[in-house]
Amino acid sequence: MPLRRVGILTGGGDCAGLNAVLRAVTRCAISRYGATVLGVADGFEGLLDEPRTVSLTSAMVKGLLARGGTILGSSNKGDPFAYKTVENGRVTTADRSDEALANLRDLELDVLFVVGGDGTNAVGNKFFLRGAPIIGIPKTIDNDLGATDITFGFDSAVNIVVEAIDRLQTTAQSHHRVMIVETMGRNAGWIALQAGLAGGADVILIPEIPWRVETIVRAIQARKKLGRNFTIVCVAEGAKPDGGEACVRELVPDSAEPVRLGGIGDRLAGWLERYDVGECRATVLGHVQRGGAPTAFDRNLCTRLGAFAVHTAARGEFGTMVALQNNRLIATPLAEAIKQIRLVDPAGEWVRAARDTGVCFGDG
Amino acid sequence: MPLRRVGILTGGGDCAGLNAVLRAVTRCAISRYGATVLGVADGFEGLLDEPRTVSLTSAMVKGLLARGGTILGSSNKGDPFAYKTVENGRVTTADRSDEALANLRDLELDVLFVVGGDGTNAVGNKFFLRGAPIIGIPKTIDNDLGATDITFGFDSAVNIVVEAIDRLQTTAQSHHRVMIVETMGRNAGWIALQAGLAGGADVILIPEIPWRVETIVRAIQARKKLGRNFTIVCVAEGAKPDGGEACVRELVPDSAEPVRLGGIGDRLAGWLERYDVGECRATVLGHVQRGGAPTAFDRNLCTRLGAFAVHTAARGEFGTMVALQNNRLIATPLAEAIKQIRLVDPAGEWVRAARDTGVCFGDG
Amino acid sequence: MPLRRVGILTGGGDCAGLNAVLRAVTRCAISRYGATVLGVADGFEGLLDEPRTVSLTSAMVKGLLARGGTILGSSNKGDPFAYKTVENGRVTTADRSDEALANLRDLELDVLFVVGGDGTNAVGNKFFLRGAPIIGIPKTIDNDLGATDITFGFDSAVNIVVEAIDRLQTTAQSHHRVMIVETMGRNAGWIALQAGLAGGADVILIPEIPWRVETIVRAIQARKKLGRNFTIVCVAEGAKPDGGEACVRELVPDSAEPVRLGGIGDRLAGWLERYDVGECRATVLGHVQRGGAPTAFDRNLCTRLGAFAVHTAARGEFGTMVALQNNRLIATPLAEAIKQIRLVDPAGEWVRAARDTGVCFGDG
Amino acid sequence: MPLRRVGILTGGGDCAGLNAVLRAVTRCAISRYGATVLGVADGFEGLLDEPRTVSLTSAMVKGLLARGGTILGSSNKGDPFAYKTVENGRVTTADRSDEALANLRDLELDVLFVVGGDGTNAVGNKFFLRGAPIIGIPKTIDNDLGATDITFGFDSAVNIVVEAIDRLQTTAQSHHRVMIVETMGRNAGWIALQAGLAGGADVILIPEIPWRVETIVRAIQARKKLGRNFTIVCVAEGAKPDGGEACVRELVPDSAEPVRLGGIGDRLAGWLERYDVGECRATVLGHVQRGGAPTAFDRNLCTRLGAFAVHTAARGEFGTMVALQNNRLIATPLAEAIKQIRLVDPAGEWVRAARDTGVCFGDG
Repeated sequence: MPLRRVGILTGGGDCAGLNAVLRAVTRCAISRYGATVLGVADGFEGLLDEPRTVSLTSAMVKGLLARGGTILGSSNKGDPFAYKTVENGRVTTADRSDEALANLRDLELDVLFVVGGDGTNAVGNKFFLRGAPIIGIPKTIDNDLGATDITFGFDSAVNIVVEAIDRLQTTAQSHHRVMIVETMGRNAGWIALQAGLAGGADVILIPEIPWRVETIVRAIQARKKLGRNFTIVCVAEGAKPDGGEACVRELVPDSAEPVRLGGIGDRLAGWLERYDVGECRATVLGHVQRGGAPTAFDRNLCTRLGAFAVHTAARGEFGTMVALQNNRLIATPLAEAIKQIRLVDPAGEWVRAARDTGVCFGDG
Repeated sequence: MPLRRVGILTGGGDCAGLNAVLRAVTRCAISRYGATVLGVADGFEGLLDEPRTVSLTSAMVKGLLARGGTILGSSNKGDPFAYKTVENGRVTTADRSDEALANLRDLELDVLFVVGGDGTNAVGNKFFLRGAPIIGIPKTIDNDLGATDITFGFDSAVNIVVEAIDRLQTTAQSHHRVMIVETMGRNAGWIALQAGLAGGADVILIPEIPWRVETIVRAIQARKKLGRNFTIVCVAEGAKPDGGEACVRELVPDSAEPVRLGGIGDRLAGWLERYDVGECRATVLGHVQRGGAPTAFDRNLCTRLGAFAVHTAARGEFGTMVALQNNRLIATPLAEAIKQIRLVDPAGEWVRAARDTGVCFGDG
Repeated sequence: MPLRRVGILTGGGDCAGLNAVLRAVTRCAISRYGATVLGVADGFEGLLDEPRTVSLTSAMVKGLLARGGTILGSSNKGDPFAYKTVENGRVTTADRSDEALANLRDLELDVLFVVGGDGTNAVGNKFFLRGAPIIGIPKTIDNDLGATDITFGFDSAVNIVVEAIDRLQTTAQSHHRVMIVETMGRNAGWIALQAGLAGGADVILIPEIPWRVETIVRAIQARKKLGRNFTIVCVAEGAKPDGGEACVRELVPDSAEPVRLGGIGDRLAGWLERYDVGECRATVLGHVQRGGAPTAFDRNLCTRLGAFAVHTAARGEFGTMVALQNNRLIATPLAEAIKQIRLVDPAGEWVRAARDTGVCFGDG
Repeated sequence: MPLRRVGILTGGGDCAGLNAVLRAVTRCAISRYGATVLGVADGFEGLLDEPRTVSLTSAMVKGLLARGGTILGSSNKGDPFAYKTVENGRVTTADRSDEALANLRDLELDVLFVVGGDGTNAVGNKFFLRGAPIIGIPKTIDNDLGATDITFGFDSAVNIVVEAIDRLQTTAQSHHRVMIVETMGRNAGWIALQAGLAGGADVILIPEIPWRVETIVRAIQARKKLGRNFTIVCVAEGAKPDGGEACVRELVPDSAEPVRLGGIGDRLAGWLERYDVGECRATVLGHVQRGGAPTAFDRNLCTRLGAFAVHTAARGEFGTMVALQNNRLIATPLAEAIKQIRLVDPAGEWVRAARDTGVCFGDG
């Protein structure tokens, strides 16, 4: 199938590697198929109103391999099937999919690549079901897409967190402190698990394993008995203490106006200090985990996925998502791909290896 | 003057380079003077009760050049002239300087190097006035000691913050966000100023320049008009908004128990969001700024200061602090050294260069 | 099967992650099986003469996760089945396997883990065939072991090379130069391929694909026509030009004494300059690729392999090598594991993705 | 003096920070003086024939702070007073200064900033003496300009070398090897000295201190006696052995065609191996030292120099070079600035501190 006009958009939160995908798709589509490539700005949002597109040429994608973020911009609110508007503090939702589809048709694309997580790919699938030639390219910093062994951006994020933990190790040792580093991961604890394990964290707290403050306190005290007067805790932002709601309420007094509380890292520091374990300090890396130059692994995964996606389009396999399974690139049905989420298995080999080498998960 | 027994302790907060000082002092004292070197554990605290010391040999200091923290440990509470004890939540203060001096005399040191900031050096000076052969070695991550052009640990901290800002640049651009990075610096804004300037921050907030939230909002809006839909703010932890107390009270409702609020970074995010400037996210690097391998500059400054301090001791110049002034190492009286603090000059060349290249300081 | 005494040695060239394996094996064997752990110094060499071993305790392996190299030391010459001695410039070879086996028996180990590449594992297999309880742990910086999807140290090496290429990009662009970076890889081109692809190299030369200087010259000239006045070449040390022998002889005049020529990087620079393509400069990273802190991926692979190897020993599965296959850890027969080498497939997906995005391999 | 049209060019070898200077000059000239800014391409070369200039706007310099190299390009051959042409292998030199001056006049610049080393600034001075409004901005990666305490690019280069030495430390220790790292520095040994000292090199060889292979061999053997079976040597490319010419001739047999020998690093490896000190391996970082994102220090020095240079132009102080002296920015006469070169003082404090902490310089 000839590829003459190729479109691509990036949706959801950004992460390292998006630009590398844009570069690979553009280079491969131009050199292998003589196609022209159109970038849609700001995710699906760019398909509404007057569609905003930019022509992607070889010159445009020069130097993108090492550059974080996405030159196309991204958007979280732009689902055309449930488009949100905020007016005077009130949120209204409208179905603008017809408008988006009409605009998409006017662009006369042979394929539209949607690069994003489960949200973006689910919207992509709806467009596909309405007749649009969609191919998904998976992206989640949390690495929790079930259909692919790993998503780009994840390796970069993990290495950034490990670098931070490496630094905290020396200062924790010097000062006999409890150091807490809060990582991304609302539902899946992969970043906290892999970064904590690689950084040599003593305690790792993830959404998949219920934990108690008291268990952490005991682990800190056990370390002190062995002469180790410091402890490193790596906690995923979505990790919730068992019975934690009570704790939270205790901290937030009744108030007319909501208090902007710190995240779980700050709150855990407060809880632990009540148990007299010494000074506790939190580091919140936040969006630092999303930015900067991707690791070699992420860059290459992006290049491979991008080139493979173009060939997949040339074969006419729409309604699919490209993915890495057992070291091989495949195209899997979008409808399947968005069904499953991949969480850390509390009884799996990763958690066992962590426990085998001394990591406490706050349970038990 | 012969150097037979050399002592050294590290006090106050740790920072990159302390171990490199220990290495240089140990190597120089051994190879140049045939001395034995004793490390005192946990700052001045190690001089109380049964003094805790460790023999520093060439083998002991191997590999310390690149290692963050201090193998001697440090302590914040250990001023023997005003030693704090917490019992049942009540803090009592006692003068234990006689005990410390007696222990110090028993160690029969020809010199005691105290590596620390103004607090540590002030205590060192009191010991000197009581007859102890003290030489100070300056250390503050904030770079605010008046007697020396620069202190080690500072260059490392600045580079760590710049790396974080570099990462935030790409994600801020992709998402049209306001990104806030909170740095160390309670009284002096040097880290925020130099890291913000090097990272290309659009707004820099430091304790030395009063700022207003509204001015920042205007800067964000002015950028939007130029098509720049993102803003990077670099704020020192000690930077306080003009009239900020009111803001803080507004956020903290009456409550029996104190709420553990986030730092200025989190609070600024909350304040800005009320002005409808879009999503605001804070990154709090915390102690990550203190840890890890020092930069080349810091390592070399430590090596030079350490070797110079040993020679200063051999010349019998006690009651001094070694320092870097106009690219030359000197020994300056401790009594003088602790008098002056070096703040950012709001009308100085650094701030002007920042304004010349587009930085907003939140004033005006 | 009870594990009471566990031995471990590291053989062959070092790479990032060896220490992390030592840490994982030690921690897991102690905490899960109450075993004592013995490290054998300097590879198989440590089993000869008076065996040199060191007790590995929890304290000994503290901080090893992030530390490059191997605290046990390694050796290239120590194959006891063909032990080489150099005397007066003459190399003699002796079979000292009986001696090594006797020493090994005296150590009363329940298992000996041999961490190494195909050479080390082949020797391990010979010991196993003579009755020793051997389990192999794969390590090659070149990633060319057929039995495992990836070996530790490789990801770290690739990222180091990419960092260097990233730096060369800016200087090449500023000066209209040809920049050559020579990587490790005598037989397999994986490092050059993956680092070159991730770094955005324009030309990648590997042992698996025959290349000609003239083809590279044409690629450089083609780039110039597009206004790109610089070219980055990434070449594996083992990449040989088609008909290259002639070239080499041309450069090395008859001489009584062998000239210490530069590697392929330097020589390629010389060859290219004859074609008037402008200045050519080579960077030879050498052993920098082996050292320093491992990446997060490598650290975790080491921890997982180490813990898994201990459990494999407890199950009594000797004569095996632990490996990663399709994201799962397995134990595969040593005899099988050492049979296959994994080279880059010139027609495979990786090379195709590279060509799709514009990489020239010097062929055609 | 009003600044309406500002010109800038970058000459000589590139280094980290050039783009940051372009950004600062552009931003300051536009925002403070409402000037337009013209970049001259490829150094003085861009003033010949049809002058090649590019308009530098705020948008053009966006993101340049962290980007290595120079977007203007640079050239080594472009001295218009002695312009070199190569035809059929023959080099001819012509004075094309009248042409350049005429072109320069046509550009109607109020000032031309020349960013470069002593060569570039010397040419700049000649133009100034012929009436052009020149201001120099110092740049040498070698840090050997006498008129300024430090030049940008140097701190970045040193940190890159230190990172490499850090990596070599672990692999050298694991393998009992001699590791040699060759750094830039033809006449001045600052990079080798500061990087070697910061990296913990055991031997540092610089052009300013004559050294002998035998002395290095003795240092290696002395280390072995202390149980340290590895040695790190840091050698500046311009460091020549005492009586070294003989050594070189010995290695290069008579030959019709010149052999492309390795640099001093490779040759030193060969010389040392003759003394039976074990395996010697060289790492040649080459242009990696020039590239990549500048350190925080370099970025800020560039920003400050750039802004200060614009103000200097506005004050009409032409024929000067801006410089950093004792932490203050000044403008010093170009004629003076190019007179002095700053070498390492073999008897100075830096070398003494290195010797005090155990570094061997190969002398004695």
